[in-house]
Amino acid sequence: AVATPAFAQAQPTITWRLASSFPKSLDTIFGASDVFSKRVAQLTGGKFTIRVFAGGEIVPALQVMDAVQAGTVEMGHSASYYYFGKDPTFAFDCAVPFGLNSRQQTAWIDQGGGRELMREFFKDYGIVNFLGGNTGTQMGGWFRKEVKTVKDLNGLKMRIGGFAGKVMQELGVVPQQIAGGDIYPALEKGTIDAAEWVGPYDDEKLGFNKVAPFYYAPGWWEAGPQLSFYVGLKEWEKLPKEYQAAIEVATYEAHVVMQAQYDARNPAALARLLKSGVKLRSFSKEVMEACYKAANTVMDAEAEKNAKFKKVYEPWKRFRQDENQWFSVAEAPLQNFMITRKGSNGS
Amino acid sequence: AVATPAFAQAQPTITWRLASSFPKSLDTIFGASDVFSKRVAQLTGGKFTIRVFAGGEIVPALQVMDAVQAGTVEMGHSASYYYFGKDPTFAFDCAVPFGLNSRQQTAWIDQGGGRELMREFFKDYGIVNFLGGNTGTQMGGWFRKEVKTVKDLNGLKMRIGGFAGKVMQELGVVPQQIAGGDIYPALEKGTIDAAEWVGPYDDEKLGFNKVAPFYYAPGWWEAGPQLSFYVGLKEWEKLPKEYQAAIEVATYEAHVVMQAQYDARNPAALARLLKSGVKLRSFSKEVMEACYKAANTVMDAEAEKNAKFKKVYEPWKRFRQDENQWFSVAEAPLQNFMITRKGSNGS
Repeated sequence: AVATPAFAQAQPTITWRLASSFPKSLDTIFGASDVFSKRVAQLTGGKFTIRVFAGGEIVPALQVMDAVQAGTVEMGHSASYYYFGKDPTFAFDCAVPFGLNSRQQTAWIDQGGGRELMREFFKDYGIVNFLGGNTGTQMGGWFRKEVKTVKDLNGLKMRIGGFAGKVMQELGVVPQQIAGGDIYPALEKGTIDAAEWVGPYDDEKLGFNKVAPFYYAPGWWEAGPQLSFYVGLKEWEKLPKEYQAAIEVATYEAHVVMQAQYDARNPAALARLLKSGVKLRSFSKEVMEACYKAANTVMDAEAEKNAKFKKVYEPWKRFRQDENQWFSVAEAPLQNFMITRKGSNGS
Repeated sequence: AVATPAFAQAQPTITWRLASSFPKSLDTIFGASDVFSKRVAQLTGGKFTIRVFAGGEIVPALQVMDAVQAGTVEMGHSASYYYFGKDPTFAFDCAVPFGLNSRQQTAWIDQGGGRELMREFFKDYGIVNFLGGNTGTQMGGWFRKEVKTVKDLNGLKMRIGGFAGKVMQELGVVPQQIAGGDIYPALEKGTIDAAEWVGPYDDEKLGFNKVAPFYYAPGWWEAGPQLSFYVGLKEWEKLPKEYQAAIEVATYEAHVVMQAQYDARNPAALARLLKSGVKLRSFSKEVMEACYKAANTVMDAEAEKNAKFKKVYEPWKRFRQDENQWFSVAEAPLQNFMITRKGSNGS
């Protein structure tokens, strides 16, 4: 028989603050922090409390990394490519154009040397980084007019940032930085011609389908965008090892749950969008090829001038090559067979 | 400042035994139990110890579920389709022919209603089930001769079990049940013509390439085979809730780590196999179509006569349909583009 534990009287009581980059309305991506913090509390008999704050509540959404670095908050949950402006190397912790898909990204971080490389990089910012979810391949965004050729991209004003913006720029796109809440009016007025956000489940909430009917796929700049938890290195080192273990293991759970939520919720959201009249389009082979070429140009150029970037880029490229070769053998052929099945794909 | 905790004096000291279905030589799939039990120990300050035993050490490899049900061990780690003979419904907790891929399976269990359905089913066996890893789409096995048409399957003696064996039987294959260690001599002597195992990383260890040169893909009977942890329901209910939380969260970590290990290790193993002279082959469209048709026949027939099976099969089929439709929009097209890239896929 097992006695009920009078749990851990000797453990320290600790309260931390976690700043998320995401609004509560994006329940899957914001929700990862809740899943995480609830589990940590549960594992520690309620002694280790991590209070979660939505984007903008105590820290501006796009400055979560800075806030953890400065010690304003002990933890953050963010997309590392938001910090592309400080150093494009951050993007490997999230997504780079034509990068790894969700499973490949997790494999790279967890078992492919990625964690070691990214931890070394994050150390300069006083941060320990952890897996914090993934959305899967995102959509290519909402367009007011069809884009059939590379020529159609010329002069197009598109809400798109970071690496993808730089790649698009090579093809004549004028990238725009616009916060989530301002995209709808900009599309409605025609101030911008296109905008990328996430995928059906999140996009539906913002109502883009009413002002930009063409919904493109795939989002080649986000094959498997990973979210990350950040912990201030100094705070991390002060934690008892059981609390460190609680953080570490709880990030894995949040990582699984977020991807599963997106996978389980996107299909119905896409069906609703299509029913509302959204016109689903695929980027043409010509556009994809041109974007791929431009992406390599932009990334190679960054590697030339940025030693930190190059240090990650070289092994990452080999990993990507190996993964895609392997996925081409069994995973992709079976997936391709399944999506042509009547009654299995809804056709 | 944080005091060092004199951890949890009041917690109970518990030692459990976990029987794995897998030999230590299969380090990824066996390793999941080690990852799991180490984390549980760490989370509980060493008070909750779960000793891991390899397949056959204290329980026969294919009787792990029975041992947990009987209370011989408190926990198990196994592939639920091993218990197909008791009830084919078990297979939904692992893999069924032309089933969900790794991400879809996780999404179904974690966020798509699968956990609730499978927990209800497992309750009759006195077991609480948890996610316990995935291998990703497996290979279609090793063949002594090429299989080009459905006719070539007729009379073929193949080591393949469970649902897949029943489906293959519809096409004239004579399915054989042979333990892992006996496959090599059977292939060598020609007692069997073909055998399926897992994928490059595991298959390489058994040396099948020396006796059956044709390596087929994809393993349509295992698109995303999930492993599971089993906990005896009575033991589960006696645990303090912090220990329950430790088990629950640690299974998520083991789940992520196993898939990441397979994804990170399969590419190099495949490259070595190809270098050794293995002839990679894809099942023809004709063979795939015939197998798909046969699989539906076998599964529909099971649903007709087995109410438990039908209860899972119906919502599962809808989930599969929704997932494949969604994956056809962004995930698969980008994956397909990437695997045709020079320098990205090694070609």
